[in-house]
Amino acid sequence: MRILVTNDDGIDAPGIITLVKYLSRSHDVQVVAPDSQKSAIGHAITIRTPIWAKETEVIDGVKGYAVNGTPADCVKLGLEVLMDGNVDLVVSGINEGPNLGTDILYSGTVSGALEGALMGKPSIAISCSNQSDPHYESAAKFLVDFLEVFNVAEIPRFSALNVNVPSVPYDKIRGWRITRQSSRRYRDKFEARKDPFGNTYYWMFGEIIEDDESDDADYVAINNGYVSITPISVFLTDWDFMEKLKEVKWG
Amino acid sequence: MRILVTNDDGIDAPGIITLVKYLSRSHDVQVVAPDSQKSAIGHAITIRTPIWAKETEVIDGVKGYAVNGTPADCVKLGLEVLMDGNVDLVVSGINEGPNLGTDILYSGTVSGALEGALMGKPSIAISCSNQSDPHYESAAKFLVDFLEVFNVAEIPRFSALNVNVPSVPYDKIRGWRITRQSSRRYRDKFEARKDPFGNTYYWMFGEIIEDDESDDADYVAINNGYVSITPISVFLTDWDFMEKLKEVKWG
Repeated sequence: MRILVTNDDGIDAPGIITLVKYLSRSHDVQVVAPDSQKSAIGHAITIRTPIWAKETEVIDGVKGYAVNGTPADCVKLGLEVLMDGNVDLVVSGINEGPNLGTDILYSGTVSGALEGALMGKPSIAISCSNQSDPHYESAAKFLVDFLEVFNVAEIPRFSALNVNVPSVPYDKIRGWRITRQSSRRYRDKFEARKDPFGNTYYWMFGEIIEDDESDDADYVAINNGYVSITPISVFLTDWDFMEKLKEVKWG
Repeated sequence: MRILVTNDDGIDAPGIITLVKYLSRSHDVQVVAPDSQKSAIGHAITIRTPIWAKETEVIDGVKGYAVNGTPADCVKLGLEVLMDGNVDLVVSGINEGPNLGTDILYSGTVSGALEGALMGKPSIAISCSNQSDPHYESAAKFLVDFLEVFNVAEIPRFSALNVNVPSVPYDKIRGWRITRQSSRRYRDKFEARKDPFGNTYYWMFGEIIEDDESDDADYVAINNGYVSITPISVFLTDWDFMEKLKEVKWG
C-alpha cells in the first residue's frame, strides 16, 4: 500500500521513526509530519498563516516533509499536494502515551486520522499506552501484523480506527479487543503562582478518572494487556437526546 | 442562572459582547475567554506552558477574565478556579460564522461547549451563520428566548447543544429545527508561492461541499431560514462498524 504517515509529536520523534522503519519494509511510505511537538493541539488547522513544507529523509530511503503546521494540516497538504491524492492509507502515530476515552477530543494524533477520514481515506491512529516506558517496536509490529489480516478498505467513509497498544514486549501482548470510547477523563487541577511582576498564573495538570468499567471500554482492554481498537466517526450527533429535544416547543 | 461565557474569537469580539449584553439582563454572567483570536483551534489545551488570566470588565457590571489560552483552557480554568464550580450553564459564542457539519471538529467555539460537557455542566455552543454580515443580536435574542422554554438541566451528561442561528433580523427567523451533524465539509485547495529565499510555502483555503441533503441536516435548516439545534456528544464510537470489526481474527 501507499501510506501517508503523520503524527503530533513531530517528525523527529522516536514513535514515528519506529513506525516508518516497520511499515516501509512492506509498504511504500511517505511522511508528512509537524516540524515540532504538537500534542494536545486537537483538530486545529492553520488558516491565517501560510504553511511551509521542508523536504527531508526520515530514515534511509523514506522521504518526508517537515511542516510548520498541525497534524490535520499535514494530512490535508500531504493528500492534496505532496502525495497527489495517491494514498491507500493514512497512519498517525505512534503517539508517545495513550489516546483513550476523552483523550480523543484533545489528541493531535487522532485528529490526523480523522482528517484522513474526512478526506475519504482509510485512516488509523496508533498510540503507545505508556509515556514513560514506551515500547514503540511492539506497537509498530502489531500494526504491520494487523494490516496483514485486516483490509483497510473496509473502514467506512467518515470513520477511522483508534488503536492503543500496551507498552510491553511484543510477545506479552495478549491479543486485541474491539472497544468503545470510554468516558476516561481528567479532573483538572490548577496550581496558582505569582510572576515577578505580581500577576497570577496557573499551571494545569490532571488526575485521571477511570469510572467506566466494562469489558468493551478502551482503557479496560489496555489495563488487561490487550490492544484496544476503537472504531470512531467524525459525527458527534447524540441520537437519543435528539428525540427528546423534538418535544420542546417554541414559547 | 449563573452562566460562564466563553468563545474562540477573543474576549473583545462583537459576538461575545452582544451575547453578554442579552444574557446578563436575566442571568448572572461571568466571562472567561481567550485574550485573542483562537478560531480553528479545535479542542487544543495548554499543557506545557502556564496560563495567565487577567481580570477585566466586559460590559458595565459584567466581570471577565482574558486568558492566554484556548476555549477549552478557559472553561477548565473558569469552572475549577475562577467561578469555583458554581455554574449552571456554559455558553460558547457567538461565533463569527457557522459551525455546521464537519466544522464541529475544528471549531474552538464547539470545543468550549464540549469541555463544559466533559466537566459535567450543561453547555451550549452558539454561532451566527454569516461571517460577512453577522446579525449577532438575532442569535443572542434567540438564545435568551430558548432558555425561557428549555430547561438546560435536561442536557444529558457528556452531551451539549450546537446552535447555529441564521444571520437575519430576528423577526425573519422561521423557527428552529432539531438537526443532526451533516457531512458538510471542505475541498481543500493549496496555493503554492515562493518566499524571498526560494522556499515553497502554501496558503490553504477550502470550497464548501454540501451533498448531504435532508430536512434534518444542520446546514439545510440554516439555508431554509431556521435555527439549527444539534445535540452532540463527546463520544465518537462508530457502533455499526464496531460489530463488523469483531469478525476480524488475529492471523
